Amino acid sequence: MVSTIDPFFELMDIVILGSGNVATHLTYALKKAGYHIKQVFSRNLAHAKHLAEGIGAEPIDDLYYITTEADVYIIAVKDEAIAEVAATLRLRNKILLHTSGSIDIEVLKPYSSSCGVIYPLQTISKNIPLDFSKVPLILEFSNQETKAEIMNLAFKLSPLIHEYNSAQRKSLHLGAVIACNFSNYLYAIAHDFLTEQSVDFGLLKPLIAETANKINTHNPRDVQTGPAVRRDEIIIHKHLELLKSHPDWQQLYRLLSDGISHQQ
Amino acid sequence: MVSTIDPFFELMDIVILGSGNVATHLTYALKKAGYHIKQVFSRNLAHAKHLAEGIGAEPIDDLYYITTEADVYIIAVKDEAIAEVAATLRLRNKILLHTSGSIDIEVLKPYSSSCGVIYPLQTISKNIPLDFSKVPLILEFSNQETKAEIMNLAFKLSPLIHEYNSAQRKSLHLGAVIACNFSNYLYAIAHDFLTEQSVDFGLLKPLIAETANKINTHNPRDVQTGPAVRRDEIIIHKHLELLKSHPDWQQLYRLLSDGISHQQ
Repeated sequence: MVSTIDPFFELMDIVILGSGNVATHLTYALKKAGYHIKQVFSRNLAHAKHLAEGIGAEPIDDLYYITTEADVYIIAVKDEAIAEVAATLRLRNKILLHTSGSIDIEVLKPYSSSCGVIYPLQTISKNIPLDFSKVPLILEFSNQETKAEIMNLAFKLSPLIHEYNSAQRKSLHLGAVIACNFSNYLYAIAHDFLTEQSVDFGLLKPLIAETANKINTHNPRDVQTGPAVRRDEIIIHKHLELLKSHPDWQQLYRLLSDGISHQQ
Repeated sequence: MVSTIDPFFELMDIVILGSGNVATHLTYALKKAGYHIKQVFSRNLAHAKHLAEGIGAEPIDDLYYITTEADVYIIAVKDEAIAEVAATLRLRNKILLHTSGSIDIEVLKPYSSSCGVIYPLQTISKNIPLDFSKVPLILEFSNQETKAEIMNLAFKLSPLIHEYNSAQRKSLHLGAVIACNFSNYLYAIAHDFLTEQSVDFGLLKPLIAETANKINTHNPRDVQTGPAVRRDEIIIHKHLELLKSHPDWQQLYRLLSDGISHQQ
């Protein structure tokens, strides 16, 4: 009988270092793609157990016990801990990856000759299901051999593969913070303000969806609407009045409106 | 032969005052719903003609020629011109409506005993098709009789009908500016920044969509992600560095991050 199992799958054993949002979703996606997750490391053993549970991985809370028998080690911990974890691993001939938008590939190079980055460009919350096949993966590699192996792994997760250098990846991360994290904060301000005024925030949902949708087909500058782009000082003044009990929101309103008014 | 035409339709002749984004989409939606648009007014005759063309309406550019034979007069002009148009019409026993989020119903009352507001809560760009049946309509009425007639008309356009007073409608408009106009501006900044850095803005599109989508099921505060909510000063500092050639974006980044860091 001919085995239908891809030999690549059989060979690729993975260790996940981290148990946060990215580590969690990545682990599930890798498992789903057929990879064997050998170990899950977290400084908090309960977290490691929670993630390792049910996927047949060993939970560990001490880097000393990391196996040297896996093929790929994926560091998905907080940015400031990546270098330290890489240094402790000392796995020179294994594939060593991190998943951060902001950390240079260089931090891994002293610790492995086959290193790289898989940065999933998505807003990842632990408790919200994530379809990894729709997540763009931003890749970087230390060399061409490593590239082939990482590309192979990445394509099992998502067809949306893009290669960028560390500087570009950092820019992309900053772009994501501006376009997404900050937009979400504006949603939060609108939510809190409307709730104060006994108005249903839910009414804004179609509008928010349409605003986000429009940029799929238009340059955002070309579809800017609202009082600021019309330079409607009367409305702007009224809005600033309505926000007078929230000086921080008022300051933001002024700054954003000034930016919009002067951009064109 | 029994006519299948709703007698209400036969009676409701409409005059549209204005030729901007709201006037345009509302005119097409009313026409599609079976209403007869008698006239389209714009100070710019070419604009009036453009909109009146093909829907069998008379284009006019002088309020002196407004027919007194219609049933409903919808003022969809710039906020600051609404009172002036209403005053010129002097149609005391006709239904007089405006479509603004920010203007009080009171400005219409001296000119008609049957007045009201239909505020379509959507980001409306002239050249982007709009499905009015998905647009929440925020209604206000001068009295109960008028309410029945306006509700009837509004329901022909959209099932998403909400009654709010003028103060609440203004709050909703401000909420929409914050959540939508300002988010779009953040998209524009991200677009321009990434283009400068030779990175494809298109990569952010799934992320932007997911960010907007998350608030359908979550309070925005509960799904805030990014360096500011983690109080990751190292990343924040790097991002401010990357924005150093754009002091206005840098200032916005700082203010938004401070707001996010201090909200929880």
